[in-house]
Amino acid sequence: MHLNVFVMTTGHHEASWRLPESDPYASIDLAHYQNVARIAEDAAFDSLFLADSPHLPGPVRRRPWGMLEPLTLATALAAVTERIGLIATVSTSYNEPYNVARTLASLDHLSGGRFGWNVVTSPDLPAARNFGLSDLPSHASRYARAAEFVEVAFKLWDSWADDAIVGDKAAAIWADESKVCPIDHVGEYFSVAGPLNVPRPPQGHPLLVQAGSSEEGRQFAGRYAEAVFTAQQTLPGARAFAEDLKARAAAFGRDPSKVKILPGLVPIIGSTTAEARALEASLSELISQEYAQGQLASLLQVPVSALPLDGPLPFADLPPEESVEGARSRFSLVVDLARRENLTVRQLIGRLGGGRGHLTITGTPEQVADEMEAWYSAGAADGFNIMPAVLPSGLSVFCAEVVPLLRKRGLFRSEYAGRTLREHYGLDRPAVAVPAGNGDQRQPRLGSERLV
Amino acid sequence: MHLNVFVMTTGHHEASWRLPESDPYASIDLAHYQNVARIAEDAAFDSLFLADSPHLPGPVRRRPWGMLEPLTLATALAAVTERIGLIATVSTSYNEPYNVARTLASLDHLSGGRFGWNVVTSPDLPAARNFGLSDLPSHASRYARAAEFVEVAFKLWDSWADDAIVGDKAAAIWADESKVCPIDHVGEYFSVAGPLNVPRPPQGHPLLVQAGSSEEGRQFAGRYAEAVFTAQQTLPGARAFAEDLKARAAAFGRDPSKVKILPGLVPIIGSTTAEARALEASLSELISQEYAQGQLASLLQVPVSALPLDGPLPFADLPPEESVEGARSRFSLVVDLARRENLTVRQLIGRLGGGRGHLTITGTPEQVADEMEAWYSAGAADGFNIMPAVLPSGLSVFCAEVVPLLRKRGLFRSEYAGRTLREHYGLDRPAVAVPAGNGDQRQPRLGSERLV
Repeated sequence: MHLNVFVMTTGHHEASWRLPESDPYASIDLAHYQNVARIAEDAAFDSLFLADSPHLPGPVRRRPWGMLEPLTLATALAAVTERIGLIATVSTSYNEPYNVARTLASLDHLSGGRFGWNVVTSPDLPAARNFGLSDLPSHASRYARAAEFVEVAFKLWDSWADDAIVGDKAAAIWADESKVCPIDHVGEYFSVAGPLNVPRPPQGHPLLVQAGSSEEGRQFAGRYAEAVFTAQQTLPGARAFAEDLKARAAAFGRDPSKVKILPGLVPIIGSTTAEARALEASLSELISQEYAQGQLASLLQVPVSALPLDGPLPFADLPPEESVEGARSRFSLVVDLARRENLTVRQLIGRLGGGRGHLTITGTPEQVADEMEAWYSAGAADGFNIMPAVLPSGLSVFCAEVVPLLRKRGLFRSEYAGRTLREHYGLDRPAVAVPAGNGDQRQPRLGSERLV
Repeated sequence: MHLNVFVMTTGHHEASWRLPESDPYASIDLAHYQNVARIAEDAAFDSLFLADSPHLPGPVRRRPWGMLEPLTLATALAAVTERIGLIATVSTSYNEPYNVARTLASLDHLSGGRFGWNVVTSPDLPAARNFGLSDLPSHASRYARAAEFVEVAFKLWDSWADDAIVGDKAAAIWADESKVCPIDHVGEYFSVAGPLNVPRPPQGHPLLVQAGSSEEGRQFAGRYAEAVFTAQQTLPGARAFAEDLKARAAAFGRDPSKVKILPGLVPIIGSTTAEARALEASLSELISQEYAQGQLASLLQVPVSALPLDGPLPFADLPPEESVEGARSRFSLVVDLARRENLTVRQLIGRLGGGRGHLTITGTPEQVADEMEAWYSAGAADGFNIMPAVLPSGLSVFCAEVVPLLRKRGLFRSEYAGRTLREHYGLDRPAVAVPAGNGDQRQPRLGSERLV
């Protein structure tokens, strides 16, 4: 079983920052994140994960939405850890592939092969408006751009052969130029000459991670993703999702066992079920109803006035799923949850407060471990994306109470066997695709060395 | 006097990687850079600096041009140091201001206010070809874009007031939304809504650094730069440059003493002059003439065949300076040096091998300190951009032999007095410009919080 910790400020529960134990400035405090990373590494977690969107994602009045940027934060965490993998989110909609490929290659070198890239297409209009666009690009065009973006990154990482560096001081040959080739990519969205200015990453390619669960998102994941974060409420739903994704991977000619499915899990742990429920209730009491109502209205694309707290969701007035150009799969998950369990708006807000649609397990360590084992054994999960409601305490409790149970059951490692993120997840290191121009011994077009 | 160390792989001398002491893989080895950073911090240097261009800047056959990306490298160095400032290069031609502003804000938080941004416009066609362009944008348009880019970054850093975070747990108010404002920038190159998703940096704005010395570069520096790296061969030339830049700053209404001029300096140190000259000669012998000739031809924009090793520069065949769309000021510096000293191509290559046109001082520690003091006292420099020919040994020798002399003369600090990069350089922390919409209590347009 694989374990990733999804790190978010003072925890995934929207009111976690209001707890007495939480520092309201934790979202910009490196020491807070370093502490979380060390707890996860001490427990031999496969990886930690940082989400992102290039805009202010919610009202700062109610929640610490002013945060550190994930690539730089992950780099700083790599510098104080040795084994845990680091997965950072980078948007393909508002970046250039040359910049992203070199940054990720650099991070893979800096971390000794511990980096992963969560590919997102940034489904928010306010993000688009930070990059010169007045409308959100369509769901389909965002994914088409993402696919080409990833292909360019692959070519750039492979523009250096693994053995390109020679380092022959006597002969004055630092690298074999025939093994450093331009890529000359010309596509619908990008034209990139290459080669990269960073040698091939230790992992060949940093791990590719994906989290969108819409039709386009699943196709993208089936084609490229090596680990998939997903929000699932039920074991059968999760198993169907995993089977679907692995079938898509197989259809692309990939080994389906090399796509790791990691549903999100919010563990709320007490020494008795009653204690766990009391902890959950104490968190729910801290939720700002006004804030949560606004968030739900934004997700469902209806005015706040359409969401009376003690009434049902206005199902008839919701937009059809196919018209949702934002986070399409999350929209459906929330609507289905409210319909399936016949929840009022207030009840739905309580259910979403901790995990925004991800599975919440409230109970004893044994109950949490039982549920995890059940999902894992049933093929509904290759591991879990652990989303502590409160950080660092929720992670500490999980590591102290649940991880030992998983180990006793032979489900989770006691210590790291490998060094790289790929090794932790049991994934192969990609070989260099033969560059198009390899046989021609094409020379890269060079600038001069005037850096300053 | 201020001291910055310009960190480049195994040193600035193009043949430094061939020395027995050098590791050919140092360019991708974090431990190498960490060692250099600690040496500079132990000597209480103001800062270290990483250059960059988003392309492969020279033939990898002859030199370790496959390197780490500077922002990520600087982040990893911040994590293992406590006081030294970190200046990283980011291009305004091939990035988006929202991404750069948030990354730099994040780094300033992560480092406790120790970050600086060396603004470059990336004057190389091969860089343009990595970003969908077939031609290099003109010198003037690159600088116009750079100016708007910097203005947008200022607005984004100021989109959070310093006291925006309230952190009132009881009232459930994390931040005062009236102090987090959209910027709604609409300009020639960029449209950016804002606000930033990172609170205001500890320094207000990370330090702004610039290194172009062309007419456009000087105007840009006079308007925005707080520290200026420059290549100067003579004291009178350096003094004229410093006076010119400070006059330009004054013309923009700025305090000229708040623009720090830092000429590059390659110190080649021996316990006697003869020993220093022998060290320089041993490095020159390791230069690949073929490589150096190609680099010179690229800089001068002539074919290699126009540069016979034992003849003079073909002055009549060189392009006029105003037609040079690349590194215009460096072109002139090299041509003037060859003309002034009547150098053959081979001699010019020897002079450029260590510092690419920057001042090289070959001598005893006293001779180096004397020259530095002379430049400093004459108003030709507020400090120096130290460019060791060999790293880390050249820096170690400088810190052990020259820095104590500078201290004895009362020219350089014995220990850090301040915490931030601005404090090291004696520069003020910028106040928040009043956001355009501050009086209207405009609310930022928000997305929903669906990060995963």
